[in-house]
Amino acid sequence: MHRTKVRVVEGVLDANDTIARANRADFDAAGVAVINLMSAPGAGKTSLLERAVHDLDGVQVGVLEGDVQGSLDADRLATLHVPVTQINTDPSFGGECHLDANMVRSALPSVALDELDLLVIENVGNLVCPAEFRVGEDRRVMVSSVTEGEDKPLKYPLMFRACELVLVNKIDLLPHLDFDLDRFLANLDAVHPGVRRLLVSARTGEGIEEWRRWLTEATTREPQPA
Amino acid sequence: MHRTKVRVVEGVLDANDTIARANRADFDAAGVAVINLMSAPGAGKTSLLERAVHDLDGVQVGVLEGDVQGSLDADRLATLHVPVTQINTDPSFGGECHLDANMVRSALPSVALDELDLLVIENVGNLVCPAEFRVGEDRRVMVSSVTEGEDKPLKYPLMFRACELVLVNKIDLLPHLDFDLDRFLANLDAVHPGVRRLLVSARTGEGIEEWRRWLTEATTREPQPA
Repeated sequence: MHRTKVRVVEGVLDANDTIARANRADFDAAGVAVINLMSAPGAGKTSLLERAVHDLDGVQVGVLEGDVQGSLDADRLATLHVPVTQINTDPSFGGECHLDANMVRSALPSVALDELDLLVIENVGNLVCPAEFRVGEDRRVMVSSVTEGEDKPLKYPLMFRACELVLVNKIDLLPHLDFDLDRFLANLDAVHPGVRRLLVSARTGEGIEEWRRWLTEATTREPQPA
Repeated sequence: MHRTKVRVVEGVLDANDTIARANRADFDAAGVAVINLMSAPGAGKTSLLERAVHDLDGVQVGVLEGDVQGSLDADRLATLHVPVTQINTDPSFGGECHLDANMVRSALPSVALDELDLLVIENVGNLVCPAEFRVGEDRRVMVSSVTEGEDKPLKYPLMFRACELVLVNKIDLLPHLDFDLDRFLANLDAVHPGVRRLLVSARTGEGIEEWRRWLTEATTREPQPA
């Protein structure tokens, strides 16, 4: 029973990887760098994009917005005159808890890849499954809010390991929390030693310049293998 | 293709409900009230249990602790001399993002139901899939932290609809956030009109007496249908 389940899961992931490679080929052909942005619900993915994606040093940015339902985040980003495409994962029952390569593929006809330098795919808010499904991205970035506690890297290690950048958000709240930043960073290094991290606040703007610089550089740096 | 997927999903949920009913029968036979406690990662499920489950008016409480990996929360609760059983959802690849009825069933031999009045099942931190899988509980409770933003009921409506109590946690941080509580409560009423809600802070203790009273009463009130 258990072995069968593992085999089915592996089959699903194999199929996903095949479609992810097709997405990646399309992105490469269009010369678009692609970032898969992940976090728990409410960690601040959209706020950090609002802060970063306009007037980005001449880089043309588009956003693919993944949500179970609705288009609240897409509407927020559209007011910044950034081209946004919404993917809802809720066609049938309660909705998928992550984006997969096929959902992204089905949205690509609505994305003008030739006009973009950078496409940010904002995943569904979830610290588990989004890390298991590549969608064709070059890079994975996650946001971890200091309000979520120091233990999160230890409890969701796959997510923290999957990323090449961790944005530690809401640091303006540190004076009001029982959050030990050193302990969080030690936990982070325990599961992903030395991973690049930026301390940021979407609210106050702290660290946002570094985040913008990282995004700009991501359009030119050598990407990771698909 | 899409229809096939829906049918498979429905089959999985049917099988889950069958096992959930078996769990429920065991809970009823032992006279144990069971709560399925859900939230996003870091919203404060464990902290709210730490505040509530000891010396609960003579009510004997046990906890089933669901995590992808590790036993950090179970260890925290065990120091309060509450019987805790850990379920890890990570036997194979990245780990399941929710508890299902079969995982709970497999843990029951380790739970001394006859010695308990109340069993709290702390689900994996996730606002999507846990709401789709009943595990045999009488009641579902969710924690929503004010740090997550006002829009969460609209973005994760199934979770907010599934619960009979919403604990709005971390209200001690309200003075430091751009969070409009009235707007959050209006969004909550839009997806689940009139649902019971308690404003609480695990940190300061505000609202904790009401939460303890609700738990105590949950051991005697008529439960919802399985």
